[in-house]
Amino acid sequence: MKAVGICGSDVHYLKTMRCADFVVKEPMVIGHECAGIIEEVGNEVKTLVPGDRVALEPGISCWRCNLCKEGRYNLCPEMKFFATPPVHGSLANQVNENATFLTIDIHVGKAIKVKTVAFAFCIWVLCDDYSVHFWHIVVHPADLCFKLPENVSLEEGAMCEPLSVGVHACRRANIGPETNVLIMGAGPIGLVTLLAARAFGAPRIVIVDVDDYRLSVAKDLGADDIVKVSINLQDVAEEVAQIHKAMGRVDVSFDCAGFNKTMSTALSATHAGGKVCLVGMGHLEMTVPLTPAAAREVDVIGIFRYKNTWPLCLEFIRSGKIDVKPLITHRFGFSQKEVEEAFETSARGGTAIKVMFNL
Amino acid sequence: MKAVGICGSDVHYLKTMRCADFVVKEPMVIGHECAGIIEEVGNEVKTLVPGDRVALEPGISCWRCNLCKEGRYNLCPEMKFFATPPVHGSLANQVNENATFLTIDIHVGKAIKVKTVAFAFCIWVLCDDYSVHFWHIVVHPADLCFKLPENVSLEEGAMCEPLSVGVHACRRANIGPETNVLIMGAGPIGLVTLLAARAFGAPRIVIVDVDDYRLSVAKDLGADDIVKVSINLQDVAEEVAQIHKAMGRVDVSFDCAGFNKTMSTALSATHAGGKVCLVGMGHLEMTVPLTPAAAREVDVIGIFRYKNTWPLCLEFIRSGKIDVKPLITHRFGFSQKEVEEAFETSARGGTAIKVMFNL
Amino acid sequence: MKAVGICGSDVHYLKTMRCADFVVKEPMVIGHECAGIIEEVGNEVKTLVPGDRVALEPGISCWRCNLCKEGRYNLCPEMKFFATPPVHGSLANQVNENATFLTIDIHVGKAIKVKTVAFAFCIWVLCDDYSVHFWHIVVHPADLCFKLPENVSLEEGAMCEPLSVGVHACRRANIGPETNVLIMGAGPIGLVTLLAARAFGAPRIVIVDVDDYRLSVAKDLGADDIVKVSINLQDVAEEVAQIHKAMGRVDVSFDCAGFNKTMSTALSATHAGGKVCLVGMGHLEMTVPLTPAAAREVDVIGIFRYKNTWPLCLEFIRSGKIDVKPLITHRFGFSQKEVEEAFETSARGGTAIKVMFNL
Amino acid sequence: MKAVGICGSDVHYLKTMRCADFVVKEPMVIGHECAGIIEEVGNEVKTLVPGDRVALEPGISCWRCNLCKEGRYNLCPEMKFFATPPVHGSLANQVNENATFLTIDIHVGKAIKVKTVAFAFCIWVLCDDYSVHFWHIVVHPADLCFKLPENVSLEEGAMCEPLSVGVHACRRANIGPETNVLIMGAGPIGLVTLLAARAFGAPRIVIVDVDDYRLSVAKDLGADDIVKVSINLQDVAEEVAQIHKAMGRVDVSFDCAGFNKTMSTALSATHAGGKVCLVGMGHLEMTVPLTPAAAREVDVIGIFRYKNTWPLCLEFIRSGKIDVKPLITHRFGFSQKEVEEAFETSARGGTAIKVMFNL
Repeated sequence: MKAVGICGSDVHYLKTMRCADFVVKEPMVIGHECAGIIEEVGNEVKTLVPGDRVALEPGISCWRCNLCKEGRYNLCPEMKFFATPPVHGSLANQVNENATFLTIDIHVGKAIKVKTVAFAFCIWVLCDDYSVHFWHIVVHPADLCFKLPENVSLEEGAMCEPLSVGVHACRRANIGPETNVLIMGAGPIGLVTLLAARAFGAPRIVIVDVDDYRLSVAKDLGADDIVKVSINLQDVAEEVAQIHKAMGRVDVSFDCAGFNKTMSTALSATHAGGKVCLVGMGHLEMTVPLTPAAAREVDVIGIFRYKNTWPLCLEFIRSGKIDVKPLITHRFGFSQKEVEEAFETSARGGTAIKVMFNL
Repeated sequence: MKAVGICGSDVHYLKTMRCADFVVKEPMVIGHECAGIIEEVGNEVKTLVPGDRVALEPGISCWRCNLCKEGRYNLCPEMKFFATPPVHGSLANQVNENATFLTIDIHVGKAIKVKTVAFAFCIWVLCDDYSVHFWHIVVHPADLCFKLPENVSLEEGAMCEPLSVGVHACRRANIGPETNVLIMGAGPIGLVTLLAARAFGAPRIVIVDVDDYRLSVAKDLGADDIVKVSINLQDVAEEVAQIHKAMGRVDVSFDCAGFNKTMSTALSATHAGGKVCLVGMGHLEMTVPLTPAAAREVDVIGIFRYKNTWPLCLEFIRSGKIDVKPLITHRFGFSQKEVEEAFETSARGGTAIKVMFNL
Repeated sequence: MKAVGICGSDVHYLKTMRCADFVVKEPMVIGHECAGIIEEVGNEVKTLVPGDRVALEPGISCWRCNLCKEGRYNLCPEMKFFATPPVHGSLANQVNENATFLTIDIHVGKAIKVKTVAFAFCIWVLCDDYSVHFWHIVVHPADLCFKLPENVSLEEGAMCEPLSVGVHACRRANIGPETNVLIMGAGPIGLVTLLAARAFGAPRIVIVDVDDYRLSVAKDLGADDIVKVSINLQDVAEEVAQIHKAMGRVDVSFDCAGFNKTMSTALSATHAGGKVCLVGMGHLEMTVPLTPAAAREVDVIGIFRYKNTWPLCLEFIRSGKIDVKPLITHRFGFSQKEVEEAFETSARGGTAIKVMFNL
Repeated sequence: MKAVGICGSDVHYLKTMRCADFVVKEPMVIGHECAGIIEEVGNEVKTLVPGDRVALEPGISCWRCNLCKEGRYNLCPEMKFFATPPVHGSLANQVNENATFLTIDIHVGKAIKVKTVAFAFCIWVLCDDYSVHFWHIVVHPADLCFKLPENVSLEEGAMCEPLSVGVHACRRANIGPETNVLIMGAGPIGLVTLLAARAFGAPRIVIVDVDDYRLSVAKDLGADDIVKVSINLQDVAEEVAQIHKAMGRVDVSFDCAGFNKTMSTALSATHAGGKVCLVGMGHLEMTVPLTPAAAREVDVIGIFRYKNTWPLCLEFIRSGKIDVKPLITHRFGFSQKEVEEAFETSARGGTAIKVMFNL
């Protein structure tokens, strides 16, 4: 009845208690890839009814700041986002009491009245003892709950969240039938970016990784070619030559890993006037040949989550332009033991791409 | 009768024999900021006549490659540019014999017929012995020769070249009345960027440097505020706070220095959704907090020279929106001794902003 | 203490009971150019306090539809806008009872809680008998109330509304220091567009009208040149020639009148690759040479009100880049007699540009 | 060995001696959709050799004007375009003598030296007596000759020209996986726009025409739905309702007919914030509801030919994303009798979509 995916950032938080500039200072809820079934709707909600299956866009922005008004609401400094500190830290202690009322307290004073809200399932909690609890009920604005088409499962609905990262990156990089795409990293984000770039019409997509298994998955998912690379910085020039041989001109590179080496490769491989999108967050500080790239007017495009991507993701999945099912490699239930096993599986990597909780 | 400016890249070439990825392998012509008086025009040139004073856009692009066809001719891989290796290396040895015929040889086979060409003055040569020779006659496509308005001097015409860098950067960064601008570095490029940003309507411009004299010049040229900084990387956070205090939100930063510290400051200071333009080329490889900036969707925009900027520069100077005269701090003649002195003055920095040769 | 301007659409409604596709079916509130003083603020409003002088952006959008999420909230189909049917029709009958509570009823269920609201003055009502009543208290979202800088008067604050039309048009047309601007019509909207285009850096602005007085006002307000035209369609070709003589290349035309003749002139005068912005609404159906313009890739840009323009307008007024005071030609108080006189003055045209109510 | 298509504008010229603002004042060459086999290449041409099969982009722009420099070379006022007056009028009388030398005369003085030129076949001539002659040899700049991939025939190569119109329109309208597309008119240009919009990823495309046969062809070519309409202006509102029923929200409309009724329908059907591209040229002066559309910020985008579209067209055909073969309904040889028959067939319409000359 409900589905939740584990994101690398969830594992990252569990392991390190931080992700980029976001530091976990209090216990917090994790999990932001979710879909569920509506239990109750506010009395002003016209488009959804109880029983509807929906995917949830997790972030609630303020709609008052300049960034919201300009259509870049993903950058809203007042964003309330599932599982990003400090927002949900304060939820964790209270979640067992009464999630619904708590959420009302949070949202009513801002922009959402309880009546305009759809009830849905599925979010989990990282508590003080770092064990994992689940929060089965979530109160969420109706305009961030997207009804699933009949042929789209809850699992696929939950996959809209990672897919949204790829879709937003493709939008910012303006991917279309004239953009040859290089993807650094064949992890979950690299793979959703591959799927998205294909759906945006990229004529040639080459994906690069250090791992044979991941590369073979990428090939199966439709990459035109794959290039295996080392982790050795000295190999950049030679690997760039291999990439050019495999794909010709590189118009846009997505660095879905975010390490010095992947970014150096992306910057060096991209054609004059092209773009490098930095999606992964491997290193915070980077040592990369930025100046020679800038002198070819290769722009570095930052990517932060997504905005307004759910309808497009659902359309891609509904129409069959994108098939996310092969990405779901493992499934677990919601018992404490299964949850722990799930996180371990996700953290271990190996053949695990996307680990899904599913009742 | 003629005017040539010395650019930092000229001094750079003289000192290091390279600039970014461009390495001087043979003796070459340097000097690319020039204006002169037309001696002869090709028989198809309708818009210019002998005696016209003109400023010269130095680069000749191929107009056949994709980048030219898409309007990004500054990135043309076949660009023939004054004083960038290897293009003019081959000129150096022959320049004393007959520059005119030499240039015809070069250009006729490509895109320009001698009849469509305007004759102008002013370019200098870096010969085998690294002494400086002058090339008084240059054959150049008419569409790259821009007639000076009556109230614009040859010196001001030559200043169109450095000013073009600032104008191109402002265009790429989309500067207008809603963009607060931060400029890292108050050297010649920082200062022309200041002038250009003001002319594009930037409401608030703050300029940052390590040098009191340069900052005072920036203030005199119209910076709304100045911030003196150290060269110490540890000071970035504190200096960003000072910058924010001086100017509020930073929408666009121009790094006109291009060092790890200046770029780190620019990346950290710029507001979510903003842009950092990398104009200066201090470091080739950079160690900077790229990921946190990307996670605020701060894009890094590369800048390479300029395209189609002369008409706008001349209009700015003609209308008085920009006054470039204060930038010309030193003037020299074309004798060997004066030329050496000029380069030394330019290389020394100090109170020298723009050193101009002028007959 | 409070200021309200009369817009052409107000007069239009009074005369014809419609404006474009908006038809008045019930009595409604008119007046949407206003500023006032805050009486009370909601308990979550942090940036405003009672006594603050504010200008009001009149439209309240839903922040749930795609257009809102994409940053084009001015196109929101759920927009609640002062004085546009049917929104305020329902207010008219109740306005004398208790405007405040009424407004709370309206907004709470939607997006705004009364606590997040700033109280301000100044809106008027068109009642059943078509006489004019005033609504002195308005409850409005805090993020649509913009604090006036110290050197900006309430009258100038109210002028942000018409000025916003010009600012939004300049933004959509991407006006900058490289865009020569032609403005058709020297009425209030033509004049604010002139002021805005100048502030966006347009190097040459020519304004066209049939009326000598209006043209002289335009000249005084800073138009580089004026062209007097007829209302005769046969004169288009000759008048286009006059326009070209007066200004050279036309990059962007603003048709601030919106009649067959003005649009025909704008379409014919604009340079290949340029834009014509249709701002005025003289004719609904137009007979114009659209195809020849399209075949020069002259795009016709639609303009609907504005979005997120108040901060920029206030900055323009504060910094002195724009002076709106000369536009306010007549001032009236709020008595019934004065109000009627004000509307008559505004409708009569003549020397009246902007008629302002001011206590 | 060679292939030429007949364009509506060719027939239009034959019938009316004009097309939009272009008036035939002297006899001229017609025909601009062509492919051929290279006989000889200039000595600086590196990428093509005799025997190569190439498609020809017909227009030669000046590369000196602002529009060329800005990447909008299709708007170049100095464009030399096959079969557009007055350019080729002067060729017509001399074409039988020696086309090659003639063309050299034309091009050498401008931008192209004969050495940089590829020889190809296939263009026809409209002579003084309005009979049709053929010009078998054409001298053309190498960068406008595009080598056909092995699996692309000469006929398909000639189809790049009409397809380019659709591709350019899709580029200007920014078609992608989020743009629902409405196409007015299922003639040749409507059909290539359909193919192009599909290749750009449009999720839903509905095409409208008055003719059952053309609609059935559109359906076969992949339209998601078709709507049969009348030529009666009174039916617009009802037909818009049908269109909305068939496709939901209309993001972009292409008016590939260009009549009052088609344009009125497109303007009325298109969603707020959308675009109407005017591609067809049925009426020069149009009577349409421009103001209500502008008040929804529906922009009217002008389309003039294409620029830099051949590589993308060839890639679409090579990869199978677009199949142009079904568009070629009739084939004729180059004898006088066949030529006359071909033009009659094309002019008659009926089942003829694209009429091709092919040896």
